[in-house]
Amino acid sequence: MESVIVKIDATIKLKNTVMIVGLPGIGNVGKITADYLVDKMSAKKYADIYSYHLPPQVLMNNEAQARLVKNQLYYKKRKQGDILIFTGDFQGLTSQGQYEISYRVLEIAKELDVKKIITLGGYQIGKLVEIPRVLGAFTDDTLRNEAEKLGVLFSKNEPGGGIVGGAGLFLGIGSELFDIPGICLMGETSGYFSDPKSAKQVTKVLLEYLKLDLDTGDLDEKIKEIEDITSRIVENPPDEKREDLGYFG
Amino acid sequence: MESVIVKIDATIKLKNTVMIVGLPGIGNVGKITADYLVDKMSAKKYADIYSYHLPPQVLMNNEAQARLVKNQLYYKKRKQGDILIFTGDFQGLTSQGQYEISYRVLEIAKELDVKKIITLGGYQIGKLVEIPRVLGAFTDDTLRNEAEKLGVLFSKNEPGGGIVGGAGLFLGIGSELFDIPGICLMGETSGYFSDPKSAKQVTKVLLEYLKLDLDTGDLDEKIKEIEDITSRIVENPPDEKREDLGYFG
Amino acid sequence: MESVIVKIDATIKLKNTVMIVGLPGIGNVGKITADYLVDKMSAKKYADIYSYHLPPQVLMNNEAQARLVKNQLYYKKRKQGDILIFTGDFQGLTSQGQYEISYRVLEIAKELDVKKIITLGGYQIGKLVEIPRVLGAFTDDTLRNEAEKLGVLFSKNEPGGGIVGGAGLFLGIGSELFDIPGICLMGETSGYFSDPKSAKQVTKVLLEYLKLDLDTGDLDEKIKEIEDITSRIVENPPDEKREDLGYFG
Amino acid sequence: MESVIVKIDATIKLKNTVMIVGLPGIGNVGKITADYLVDKMSAKKYADIYSYHLPPQVLMNNEAQARLVKNQLYYKKRKQGDILIFTGDFQGLTSQGQYEISYRVLEIAKELDVKKIITLGGYQIGKLVEIPRVLGAFTDDTLRNEAEKLGVLFSKNEPGGGIVGGAGLFLGIGSELFDIPGICLMGETSGYFSDPKSAKQVTKVLLEYLKLDLDTGDLDEKIKEIEDITSRIVENPPDEKREDLGYFG
Repeated sequence: MESVIVKIDATIKLKNTVMIVGLPGIGNVGKITADYLVDKMSAKKYADIYSYHLPPQVLMNNEAQARLVKNQLYYKKRKQGDILIFTGDFQGLTSQGQYEISYRVLEIAKELDVKKIITLGGYQIGKLVEIPRVLGAFTDDTLRNEAEKLGVLFSKNEPGGGIVGGAGLFLGIGSELFDIPGICLMGETSGYFSDPKSAKQVTKVLLEYLKLDLDTGDLDEKIKEIEDITSRIVENPPDEKREDLGYFG
Repeated sequence: MESVIVKIDATIKLKNTVMIVGLPGIGNVGKITADYLVDKMSAKKYADIYSYHLPPQVLMNNEAQARLVKNQLYYKKRKQGDILIFTGDFQGLTSQGQYEISYRVLEIAKELDVKKIITLGGYQIGKLVEIPRVLGAFTDDTLRNEAEKLGVLFSKNEPGGGIVGGAGLFLGIGSELFDIPGICLMGETSGYFSDPKSAKQVTKVLLEYLKLDLDTGDLDEKIKEIEDITSRIVENPPDEKREDLGYFG
Repeated sequence: MESVIVKIDATIKLKNTVMIVGLPGIGNVGKITADYLVDKMSAKKYADIYSYHLPPQVLMNNEAQARLVKNQLYYKKRKQGDILIFTGDFQGLTSQGQYEISYRVLEIAKELDVKKIITLGGYQIGKLVEIPRVLGAFTDDTLRNEAEKLGVLFSKNEPGGGIVGGAGLFLGIGSELFDIPGICLMGETSGYFSDPKSAKQVTKVLLEYLKLDLDTGDLDEKIKEIEDITSRIVENPPDEKREDLGYFG
Repeated sequence: MESVIVKIDATIKLKNTVMIVGLPGIGNVGKITADYLVDKMSAKKYADIYSYHLPPQVLMNNEAQARLVKNQLYYKKRKQGDILIFTGDFQGLTSQGQYEISYRVLEIAKELDVKKIITLGGYQIGKLVEIPRVLGAFTDDTLRNEAEKLGVLFSKNEPGGGIVGGAGLFLGIGSELFDIPGICLMGETSGYFSDPKSAKQVTKVLLEYLKLDLDTGDLDEKIKEIEDITSRIVENPPDEKREDLGYFG
């Protein structure tokens, strides 16, 4: 089998496209933001992407219906320039896997006239903060300046720092091997659990950048859910011996 | 060498085929059931499947005759629709290996007119039960409903659960990349040892589903054997320092 | 680069060939025996075999001359049938690596008219014995019977046992994918260190089988060396904190 | 994607070329020396080399500008024979990766008329020394003798020693698969931190060998920096619980 299999749902042409990359990762910030966008924009599915670099398993919904783990591309056509969103259940399991999936998806992005890449992620700070800041990295000065105007911080104090996984690779491979400029937006997060509060800050920057007027109430609900769970955990720490029945086969 | 090598024993044509997948795994439920079926139906060998994704070793019988580890396809021709059974010594050692073997075998399955896939596995519950239940997952509503009538439980309480390994991959790849619908039958098992009691419950569902009238006495013997061993272990716990001489080379 | 690169030194034709496989492994029994044979028979180099499945390093002799790690094929032409010997510095690092190297070398073996494969290895028993026995495994009855006459034991008491690594793979792949019958000769060994005493027993069987009349005095010297080292270690256990300077780069 | 992607910046022809290989490794000796040479010789970029065998990440400078991790080839044209320098952010993550990158770069080296390879590395001795010695390994007698005249030590006391990683592979693959002779220069180093003092000794040998008259003052500055850091660490051992914020994504 091919290492990455692309199953295209819709034959479309996009124009002057901005690509958003939001995958599972630190605080799940990228994925929460991408899922929110797909949902609120009523983005349509462009393709399912399967790979032997993803875990060898199916996921089930609560009716016990199973589907193979995958990554997905969604799109939204707009007058101001189309939007392509890349998200998925998992990132590649190995270095080679992450490179191969990113590279293959960027080949598709190039065909879909992607002109800018915005990757999303979490920036782990190991503690809770009231209002997470949004930090940026860039491969192109113009994008950097636009993002800075929206309040994104481009730190001068982290020489040698790195961004690992898809949030980094789409930026780096996009810029150096596909000539597509990009920025990465990272929400500060403790990194200890799924963090919709951080995702909300990233989302607000993204909506402003994309000139989208969408309600963020759903994210507020998720924030409330997580806060309820974390406060319950503080009160009743989990029994570490509990059997985890979530995975079988 | 090719990553998966298929050595075909018999040139046959199958029609309206149901494929059974039973590989080693939790409680060995899938493999025990598949081995039982091959034996009792006097299924014939269709192909041996070798791969560098399987362990690099030979297995010996008690005459010291060695053979390379492998997976196998067996078949049984029937008026009501043919049966193809996939089993083997091991599952692929890596994620890529499990995908590549499943994908290659499904290519063969497609050629052999496989219309439905039934994968078999264990569902680990971490404790012994008197009568293991058979739980199901599905990719197709019709198959789900048929199985439910036979007493298979399709849980509504495990959102996000997953089935790993061949029992999941044949279901997922089969459905999404080969358009073959399927269900997975999982016998509850402690998961601590080879569990013919769980396999027997799965077998009973399977026999009814396939409209096969076969004696399950052999499984009762295996159940007795395991019960003898486990009761002996409870009385005389093994010496953990004993040298394991089973593997050499 | 190709996964396995064969650099042929000599263009030869062999006929009615027996192939000996002796690689590093348990007690180093296979490699000691193969090295002895190459040396005593004045076998000539047929090919060097390089692979990215071997460790990424060079080895140096005591003049600091470096050479890439490799496997090698040697040959000896004889009236009674030619001999091909496969040995090397290391076995493949991964399952895939061991399969790919074995498969590629067997392709060459087939071209060199190999009719029988004899793989050599150690059988770990975890304790010292005065006279190690030679145990066998086989893929072909005739070879089994010939070896049994020479005192090789074919155990009936190890059902499900396995032979891992090259000693197993050349037997299994040779028989099932190249139609070349084979036996494996395993010398009993503690497995705790390089074991020329075990190798000597294997060598004696091999010499008789190949109808070779070679002096085994060199092996006696090696046995003496090892016995001196082990008795010194018993008297003066090594300082575990000593820096190992053998590897650098 | 290809496993190694070469993006050539300059179309040049080199003649009678010496290739220098200095990658990250023990004491970072090879990389410090290669970086120094590139800088002081004002060597020009020949190519960037990307690979899925490198870590899946981007690195950022202190303006938050990101670039994909890579290896690089630089060149300097000279009357006495051109110089090609290979360096990079990381070595390949796996054995296969190190082989594939080395092999691909040597294919380019062959095209650029590389006649000699000098690989650089650290030789870990586990303690600080006042004046690190430079040890050598070789694949060709002439190069060995030339280097010995410059004070390089070719030890007769390390039979079976090995050089792992790029410093070994370029030597071994270069010699055995590309017919390019080479030597390896290794500076003694504690191996506990980046060691410009060791790199300086290697650099001095290299400058003399290449008949280059370059100032080594920059290395003296780096030596001072490291000595300041290490003496500060001795006085104030680091708090091991400090959060490492260098990596995120």
